Amino acid sequence: MNNPVYINGEFMEYEAARIDLEDRGYQFADGVYEVINSYNGKPFRMIEHFERLKKSAAALEIKVSDYGQLQADAEELIRRSGFTDASLYLQITRGTEPRSHAYSDDLTPNIVMTVKELKNHPDEYYQKGVKAITLPDERWSRCYIKTIALLPNVLAKKKAKRAGAFEAIMVRDGFITEGTSSNLFIVRDERIITPPATNYILNGITRRVILEEAAKLGFTVLEESISLGELFEADEVFLTGTTTEVMPVVEIDGGVIKDGKPGKITGKLFDHYRGLLG
Amino acid sequence: MNNPVYINGEFMEYEAARIDLEDRGYQFADGVYEVINSYNGKPFRMIEHFERLKKSAAALEIKVSDYGQLQADAEELIRRSGFTDASLYLQITRGTEPRSHAYSDDLTPNIVMTVKELKNHPDEYYQKGVKAITLPDERWSRCYIKTIALLPNVLAKKKAKRAGAFEAIMVRDGFITEGTSSNLFIVRDERIITPPATNYILNGITRRVILEEAAKLGFTVLEESISLGELFEADEVFLTGTTTEVMPVVEIDGGVIKDGKPGKITGKLFDHYRGLLG
Repeated sequence: MNNPVYINGEFMEYEAARIDLEDRGYQFADGVYEVINSYNGKPFRMIEHFERLKKSAAALEIKVSDYGQLQADAEELIRRSGFTDASLYLQITRGTEPRSHAYSDDLTPNIVMTVKELKNHPDEYYQKGVKAITLPDERWSRCYIKTIALLPNVLAKKKAKRAGAFEAIMVRDGFITEGTSSNLFIVRDERIITPPATNYILNGITRRVILEEAAKLGFTVLEESISLGELFEADEVFLTGTTTEVMPVVEIDGGVIKDGKPGKITGKLFDHYRGLLG
Repeated sequence: MNNPVYINGEFMEYEAARIDLEDRGYQFADGVYEVINSYNGKPFRMIEHFERLKKSAAALEIKVSDYGQLQADAEELIRRSGFTDASLYLQITRGTEPRSHAYSDDLTPNIVMTVKELKNHPDEYYQKGVKAITLPDERWSRCYIKTIALLPNVLAKKKAKRAGAFEAIMVRDGFITEGTSSNLFIVRDERIITPPATNYILNGITRRVILEEAAKLGFTVLEESISLGELFEADEVFLTGTTTEVMPVVEIDGGVIKDGKPGKITGKLFDHYRGLLG
C-alpha cells in the first residue's frame, strides 16, 4: 500500500478515505492529534505519545473505547506502509452529529490515521542553523492540550515562512512560550533552559526527551521563564519537536545569536538525540 | 431534496457528501463560516453575511474566485431544500494539500453548504427568559474573524448546558466579551449597551441589526465595555444571534437579574426583530 489510511477500524487506500461533513472535527475543530515517527520500523516514544493523546482526549471529554487496540492498529498501519522511516498522523475527533456547539455525551469518536514516508529536514538546517521570527502569541489559554484548533499556529508559521524563517517563536506577556510546532530552549552559561510546561505551552515529547537526556549527560537543566531579552542574549537557541528534532536557531528577527553559528551544546544534543532514534 | 448539500459547485444529497481527509479545515481548523437564516423563502441579511464572510476569508488569505456565484448557489440551495424557513450553513476552508502548518498560496478553497429546516428556540424561552453562566474567555485574540476554530466556544457552551443554562457569557480581564454563539447586551436606565466590536468579539449581524433598529426606535444605544459587576446590576440582559434572535436572560450564575422576568425593552426589541424577518 502507498500512503495507507485508517479510519475507524478499517485500513484503506488514501483515495478511498472520506470524512463526514458533520464530523465535529470539520465544523468545530473538536478533536486532538499526535504525530509519531517510526525509525527502522520502530515507533519512537509511542507510549509517551499515547499517554499524551489520552490526556488530550480526556481534557475534551472525548472517549476512546480501546487505546490498546488503537496502538496496535497504529503499529499495523506503519507496517503496511512498508516505509523504513515513517511519520504517522493520528487524529481523534469527537464524532459526527447534526451541527450544534454543545456536544452529545454518547458520541462515538472518529479516528483517522495516515502514514507517510518520513522526510527529515535538510542536513544543512542542522549544520548551519535556521532563522526564526518572534510574534505575539495569539492562541487560546489551553495550549497544553494538543488539539486540531491550529489556526493561530498556521497563521504564525506562514508569517515565518514568508519572512524566510523556519519558525515563529511566540511571545505572551513579554515571555517566550514556544514555536508554532516546536518547543524552545536556550543555553546560557552552559545551562539548558526551557519555559515551564504551563497551560500556555504544549509539553512536547521531544522536549521531555531532551530534558531527560541533557540531565543524563550532566548538564544543568532548568524549566524557567525566558523573557524576550534573555532570548536575544542567549549563548545558544534551539527548537525541539518530533519532526524538528533538535534544530539550532542562529538568527532571530534579523539579529544573530552569539556568533551566528549553531551552538556546541545544541550540536551535542542533536547528535545524542539522533543516536536514540531507531 | 431533503437536507441538500453543496460542495464546490455541485449540489447533492447529504449522504453523498464526503470531505477529503487532508482538507485543511479538518486538520487545522483553517476555515471560516456563516449561518444564514431564510424566512418565507427570503434569506435575511444575506448581503451583510456575505460581506462578513469576505472579510473573514480575507483575514486568513483564503481566496474565493466568485462570491457572486456563491451567493446565487446559496439561494439555489435554499430553494432546492423546499423549506419555508431554512437555516443555511456555509463553510469555506483553505483547501486540500498534504499536511503542513504553512499553507501554499495557490490553494483552491473547499466550499461546503448545508441547509436544514429552521427550528426556532421554544417560545417559552423568549416569554420566560433563560439562564446563563459566566466563564473566563479562553479564546484566542482574534475573535473578530468568524473561523471554524470553535473548540473553546464548544467547551464553554457544553459547560453552560450542563449547568442547565442556555449560554455561557465569557469574561476577559473582568469585562464581558460575548456568548459562545451570541452577542450580549444590557439595558441600564433605558439605555441599551453592548461591548464595542474589538478584536475580542465577533461582530454579529443580529448585533448590528439591533444597534441600528434600537436607535431608529429612539433608544440611546452605546458600545461600551461592560464589567462583570455592571452585568449583574443591569436592568435587563439579552443575547442576540441569528439563531438566538433576541433572547432575554433572567438569571446569571444563579443570581436573578432585577425581578427575574424578561425586560420590557428586550421584549420590544424581540417583537420588532421578529417583525423584520420575512
